[in-house]
Amino acid sequence: MTPAFEKLQKQLRQLPGLGFRSAERIALHLLVEKPARLPELVEALQAAAATVRRCPRCGNLAEDGLCAICADERREQGVVCVVEHVPDLVAMERSGAYRGVYHVLHGRLSPIQGVRPEDLNFEALFSRVADGGVRELILALSNDVEGEATCHYLTQHLPAPANGVEVKTTRIGFGLPSGGGVLYADSVTLKSALDGRRHYE
Amino acid sequence: MTPAFEKLQKQLRQLPGLGFRSAERIALHLLVEKPARLPELVEALQAAAATVRRCPRCGNLAEDGLCAICADERREQGVVCVVEHVPDLVAMERSGAYRGVYHVLHGRLSPIQGVRPEDLNFEALFSRVADGGVRELILALSNDVEGEATCHYLTQHLPAPANGVEVKTTRIGFGLPSGGGVLYADSVTLKSALDGRRHYE
Ligand SMILES: [Zn+2]
Ligand SMILES: [Zn+2]
Repeated sequence: MTPAFEKLQKQLRQLPGLGFRSAERIALHLLVEKPARLPELVEALQAAAATVRRCPRCGNLAEDGLCAICADERREQGVVCVVEHVPDLVAMERSGAYRGVYHVLHGRLSPIQGVRPEDLNFEALFSRVADGGVRELILALSNDVEGEATCHYLTQHLPAPANGVEVKTTRIGFGLPSGGGVLYADSVTLKSALDGRRHYE
Repeated sequence: MTPAFEKLQKQLRQLPGLGFRSAERIALHLLVEKPARLPELVEALQAAAATVRRCPRCGNLAEDGLCAICADERREQGVVCVVEHVPDLVAMERSGAYRGVYHVLHGRLSPIQGVRPEDLNFEALFSRVADGGVRELILALSNDVEGEATCHYLTQHLPAPANGVEVKTTRIGFGLPSGGGVLYADSVTLKSALDGRRHYE
């Protein structure tokens, strides 16, 4: 086609789930079939990039102040599910099996990929625990060596809550396939994984 | 998630081939995982929207002047394949079975959807024929009532070439499933459809 068309197609191909043909189909759709949608899409991308930021409490996506989950008083604010990434949180929410809140680490420890504790969202979590607002921590990290290392680091560095409350730490485990995270697990698997969580330390 | 996130997801869902989950996955990718890609994508979209236009000769995508196919002297410029949409042309090109050029109508006649002859790219085609540069017209329009009506209109209104050359008109037909266009046909089907084209008037 044309250079600008091919550059757009190349950008689209880098998005998850889009191959050569689907990127081509979308580029044609935006340039030929429904050109009115292109500026609308650009506007939505720019608006999202300008307004979406991290929730200062949990690391989830938010706009002003706390995210919708941290701000929801019907959620059990004392039960905190620790996940690696926002899509993991989305998968948990989709399962409908969970009524607590979250903490998103935005990764997991990996000596090989050079991810160190200071690269992850640990400090905000340790503050939440130290402040005494956490009664239970559910570690929903991947069922592999790096997830294990992250769980280990986390429990080793967990501060004592100011109010002397004991924090029960469990690790989601039952049902997660070996080597896999929560992102690609279906709702039933996540439900059983939550039910089968066990004490962890 | 957040309102801006949901608006972006809604825009993405309107793109062909993207459902709720794939739109969500792409939005998360652009906002959380690879935020550096978002401005790159916006730039590619805007650049394509600003530079890509219709080829003045055939209606295909072009930037400055003629499209790459009309400008290619190795293509048989006297053999013109008439298609409904640019993606049809792309599917034909992908088959590798065709060495002529194209004419894109950008639709087909449809009394029901209110598509009239003046809404389609007929005039430029009639000019090409009148100018005497067309030796063969291959009608690669859909194998249904509207495709048939479009073929009929086209042959009824074809002007006499200035140089007295006879235009051979064929209709691609063999191999296209009933009710279907060339867009979703595989390369083998398109190859056999081209080979089996028959005289049409
Ligand atoms: Zn939050
Ligand atoms: Zn052209």
